[in-house]
Amino acid sequence: MTERKIFRTLLSLEEARKRILDYFSPQPVGVEERPIWQALDETSGEDVYSSIDVPGFDRASMDGYAVRAIDTFEAEERKPVRLRVVGTIEVGGESEVEVRTGEAAEISTGAPVPKGANAVVMVEHTQLRDGQIDVFRPVNPSENIMAAGSDIMAGELVLRKGEMLTPREIGVLSAIGLEKMKVCRRPRVAIISTGNELVPVGGDLSYGKIYDINANVIAAAVTECGGEVLLEGIASDTIDDMKQKLEAGLEHADIVLTSGSTSAGKGDLLYRILDSYGPPGVIVHGLAVKPGKPTFVAIVRGKSVFGLPGYPTSALTIFTLLVRPIIGKMTGRQEAEREEGIAAKCASRIYSAKGRREFLPVHLIKDEAGSLLVYPTTEGSGAITSLAMADGFIDIPEETQFLEEGEEVLVQLFSQTPILPDLVIMGSHCVGLDILLEFIRRSDPSFHSKIINTGSVGGFNAIKRGEADVAGIHLLDEFSGKYNLPFLMRYGIQDTAVIVKGYVRQQGLIVAKGNPRGISGIEDLLTSDLAFMNRNKGSGTRVLFDLCIKRIADERKTTAEKLVSKVKGYEVETKSHSAVAAAVSHGKVDAGLGIRTAAEMYGLAFVPIAEEQYDFLVLRKRLEKESVKQFLQALASAEFRTELARKAPGLVPSEKTGTILS
Amino acid sequence: MTERKIFRTLLSLEEARKRILDYFSPQPVGVEERPIWQALDETSGEDVYSSIDVPGFDRASMDGYAVRAIDTFEAEERKPVRLRVVGTIEVGGESEVEVRTGEAAEISTGAPVPKGANAVVMVEHTQLRDGQIDVFRPVNPSENIMAAGSDIMAGELVLRKGEMLTPREIGVLSAIGLEKMKVCRRPRVAIISTGNELVPVGGDLSYGKIYDINANVIAAAVTECGGEVLLEGIASDTIDDMKQKLEAGLEHADIVLTSGSTSAGKGDLLYRILDSYGPPGVIVHGLAVKPGKPTFVAIVRGKSVFGLPGYPTSALTIFTLLVRPIIGKMTGRQEAEREEGIAAKCASRIYSAKGRREFLPVHLIKDEAGSLLVYPTTEGSGAITSLAMADGFIDIPEETQFLEEGEEVLVQLFSQTPILPDLVIMGSHCVGLDILLEFIRRSDPSFHSKIINTGSVGGFNAIKRGEADVAGIHLLDEFSGKYNLPFLMRYGIQDTAVIVKGYVRQQGLIVAKGNPRGISGIEDLLTSDLAFMNRNKGSGTRVLFDLCIKRIADERKTTAEKLVSKVKGYEVETKSHSAVAAAVSHGKVDAGLGIRTAAEMYGLAFVPIAEEQYDFLVLRKRLEKESVKQFLQALASAEFRTELARKAPGLVPSEKTGTILS
Repeated sequence: MTERKIFRTLLSLEEARKRILDYFSPQPVGVEERPIWQALDETSGEDVYSSIDVPGFDRASMDGYAVRAIDTFEAEERKPVRLRVVGTIEVGGESEVEVRTGEAAEISTGAPVPKGANAVVMVEHTQLRDGQIDVFRPVNPSENIMAAGSDIMAGELVLRKGEMLTPREIGVLSAIGLEKMKVCRRPRVAIISTGNELVPVGGDLSYGKIYDINANVIAAAVTECGGEVLLEGIASDTIDDMKQKLEAGLEHADIVLTSGSTSAGKGDLLYRILDSYGPPGVIVHGLAVKPGKPTFVAIVRGKSVFGLPGYPTSALTIFTLLVRPIIGKMTGRQEAEREEGIAAKCASRIYSAKGRREFLPVHLIKDEAGSLLVYPTTEGSGAITSLAMADGFIDIPEETQFLEEGEEVLVQLFSQTPILPDLVIMGSHCVGLDILLEFIRRSDPSFHSKIINTGSVGGFNAIKRGEADVAGIHLLDEFSGKYNLPFLMRYGIQDTAVIVKGYVRQQGLIVAKGNPRGISGIEDLLTSDLAFMNRNKGSGTRVLFDLCIKRIADERKTTAEKLVSKVKGYEVETKSHSAVAAAVSHGKVDAGLGIRTAAEMYGLAFVPIAEEQYDFLVLRKRLEKESVKQFLQALASAEFRTELARKAPGLVPSEKTGTILS
Repeated sequence: MTERKIFRTLLSLEEARKRILDYFSPQPVGVEERPIWQALDETSGEDVYSSIDVPGFDRASMDGYAVRAIDTFEAEERKPVRLRVVGTIEVGGESEVEVRTGEAAEISTGAPVPKGANAVVMVEHTQLRDGQIDVFRPVNPSENIMAAGSDIMAGELVLRKGEMLTPREIGVLSAIGLEKMKVCRRPRVAIISTGNELVPVGGDLSYGKIYDINANVIAAAVTECGGEVLLEGIASDTIDDMKQKLEAGLEHADIVLTSGSTSAGKGDLLYRILDSYGPPGVIVHGLAVKPGKPTFVAIVRGKSVFGLPGYPTSALTIFTLLVRPIIGKMTGRQEAEREEGIAAKCASRIYSAKGRREFLPVHLIKDEAGSLLVYPTTEGSGAITSLAMADGFIDIPEETQFLEEGEEVLVQLFSQTPILPDLVIMGSHCVGLDILLEFIRRSDPSFHSKIINTGSVGGFNAIKRGEADVAGIHLLDEFSGKYNLPFLMRYGIQDTAVIVKGYVRQQGLIVAKGNPRGISGIEDLLTSDLAFMNRNKGSGTRVLFDLCIKRIADERKTTAEKLVSKVKGYEVETKSHSAVAAAVSHGKVDAGLGIRTAAEMYGLAFVPIAEEQYDFLVLRKRLEKESVKQFLQALASAEFRTELARKAPGLVPSEKTGTILS
């Protein structure tokens, strides 16, 4: 780490785009033949002309009788014209029948009109008896006949180069009998991950290593925008390995993407290799945007090589801004550019990084009126859970210090098939919630919810901001000894939010099967070497634990601080009951506070400490939202209560479950 | 055709949907294992818990030095703390380094924090000299460290069953090292076409036969909504063949679709076979909607069998209404139901079929303000070009006789990836137009246009209605001898539309190579057995031809009617110049009126008749539309003029090309 390369001039996004186009013109990469039935979503690589007439013959468009129109001109309801039936023409069959003056031939929809006939009388306007028909209405020449070539004429252009093939286009190509056609070859995109810390997904993860996330994320994004992926694997931080992977990419692909190794630290290797191919080499080295500063672009052998940042959210952001439009052009698709994004409103004031244009990851929530609200994701950019939360990002200009609450912004989406959940649930995690959602989805498989575990305090804040539709909460007010209700006023939402009764939960210490250490309560944690796992600050369980500690401290006339310093693992936080149970189950810790249900799920022992009220917090106006109604209706149902009691010992519903308490 | 089965009670769409659900509950069809990198767009078939912590170790989130935080508490800008550097920790490497009091270890972003250290000082806040660093700012414990498991904790639920896998979800699964997972198996959908008239696409088309369009159209639609297609081929109208195909479908598929053979005519065979399996058998037999009356649904061996109408547009409409939601549920996807459609406005009054609920195929056009306008497709339901035109359909209730101009309607789309063109061009067909669009797309590959050939008169009408953005026109006013301009007033659009100068076109007779019949002009058509091909009524070329005939009639003191009765093929109409040229080229006819360019394209001879003005009609307010600007700018460019002259002899641009005439 002796050399620390300073980035050359950081370019703006627009300057970078322009510079890329100065050196590299994204063009379709050629065509390949494809059977029509495998051509869905491909792009036509040629103009297609019909070699046949459609239909290929004059075709009856009604069931009835083929006639000479002139024979029917006198026909009236009261004075029908009588014609002799000389034959039947079946659909798809060849027929020798010829219709002469005074004659008719029975004909089905789709059958070829016989020689001599020039119109079809609908069967409803005739009556058959003794081999003759009475015709009650006249027909004009060509009536009820679809003329040969009237749909598509031989020689007609039916599909232009560059059109995307949807079921409609495939229908037209089938009609003209085209079995295969030229479609645009998908541009091949090589993906190389770099970094000594990376292990292929599924491989052995030794200490200090992490799985290679970017390769799969970028591969999926490339596939979505019409590229074909060539996974080149992980290049270690050596010239030989990097060069070898790069060579493979340049040889087989139309465009090369790398990620990682672009920071000003170790990343110089890759630049030096790229520059060693001779000019132009690296043409963009650093972007004046956040995230994405270490982005680079090089031109090698006429192909473009992109260096994306190492963090997955950053890599996907820069991919979306810089690479996706180029791959799009290379697909040859005559498609309107992606919309700039979808419009949404800031749910609250959003502060931005000073002095740099920022692309801030956000998630979207539909409010009760169906409008989209924008919330920044709260995890750091290095966290994969940040990517999991984010629906896309917003563009905050360099000079903007914050976006106002209610300000309209455009959200550029990460996925081209965004699926926004019907219901967003934050707050405290509970297994009962999973059972409830499963219960709802049994009757409505399309019900789509998103759960973000933030703890009870996080739930109150999320509801206050409108970021969640529903929050699971179990906060104990130590003065009144009451759960949840006192906090409505403390958060200043007594007028805007309601608490809906949930169920009682048994909280206690989750310990190993058979309780081998003979743990009988929280006191044991203070006097032994038992390893404990704590819950995150803001979670109701954490509040309960701290309260228990405080009571013991009061009894012992000492301070809580002194006591917790004796709890081994007090500062080790985890976000959910099941994570606590998993840690106990894996032998990582001896005990953790959590609900009985989690202990049972993992086949662990349980030492009861307290019973608590697990309820749901809902913004009053969101009670009108369809998905919230559905949620509360299910919660209140007797069927759910029965199911909960059966599936989750330790969760105890009551008759009040699902009713509004405040 | 002795038996004509009368439909039993026609059901409403809602009754049919309810009855299907009474007998058949669409459920996910099971799961199958899939590698993560092939799981994009699949649906998770299981809840996924993490078996590891992410990150798996305390990870530096900045480049700098790992230290004991307590050692830095006294650090100040002016009074730095000095620490001894005892080693370097590389990313991805294992390290024996331990940090003791008064020590620091160099560390890179992403590297594991060494034993003893509990914080990282950013490199920017240090200065290295002689194996020691000066630390200029204090750090707190945990600062610049991402704790083990803080992103994802072992035991945490990271993905729920039923979630669709986008790049984000694939990122999370990669982070926890999951190599493969259970995804929902796509429901298998067997597709059987019925009808003796059908020939597989690409097969030999004998007289009276047509290609099997529906199989490919329905297959594409099934694929789009998440099903896996089993093409069972074409069943002829015999009990044995139908039963055999049906058995194959029932055995291998989760749902069976047939199309054709459902009319009250021959279609009884299929019902009888379906009923022969015993109850429930056919449960829906006829729908009170247009199109779709002959639709049926049967339940056989617990599987549902749908009979779709034979016309492609009708088949796709009923598929969208009745089958797509069921396949959607069977995919197991926890996805919000498709929106009911996209909102658009009727461009003019739309009349509906009386006494039946109608699903009317429409196409959509964006106006200058970006609002969507709805136009019914004008071709009949039997025409494949009707499907090609239609973006979707609107729902007109039984009791509604018409929809008002400007009324808002919901358009249900045929394709799940609808691509609306930037520019809609109607009116007269010209090769120059193709060259112009190709020219535009070279600089903007994403420019997407739709051309509908309607002839010049159709072009005037389309512009008047706003149905097209641009229309190609060449109409001769016989009184003034002028082209196009006089018609602005005649169509009452002199204030709302403008004419943009196009180019001069040489019109004449397109005749076989070398002109073997020695044709010298239109008079020859009146005195010989020459087979002629006419253009469609409303086309400028047709108007020109009729005018020529009228002049000859005037000279000869006879009527045009008498003369045209001598032209063999006067009533045979085709829609484009290239179709005329193709007909001459195939030897179908001896001559047709068209432009020189079409003759040259097909290597045919050309007998000049007249020079005409081919111009463009644009609605004044659409001049503001981005795509229209782009179109006109390209038309006016010198580069295009050069290219046109080179590529299309017979089309003569001028300096005025691209300027507004009126």
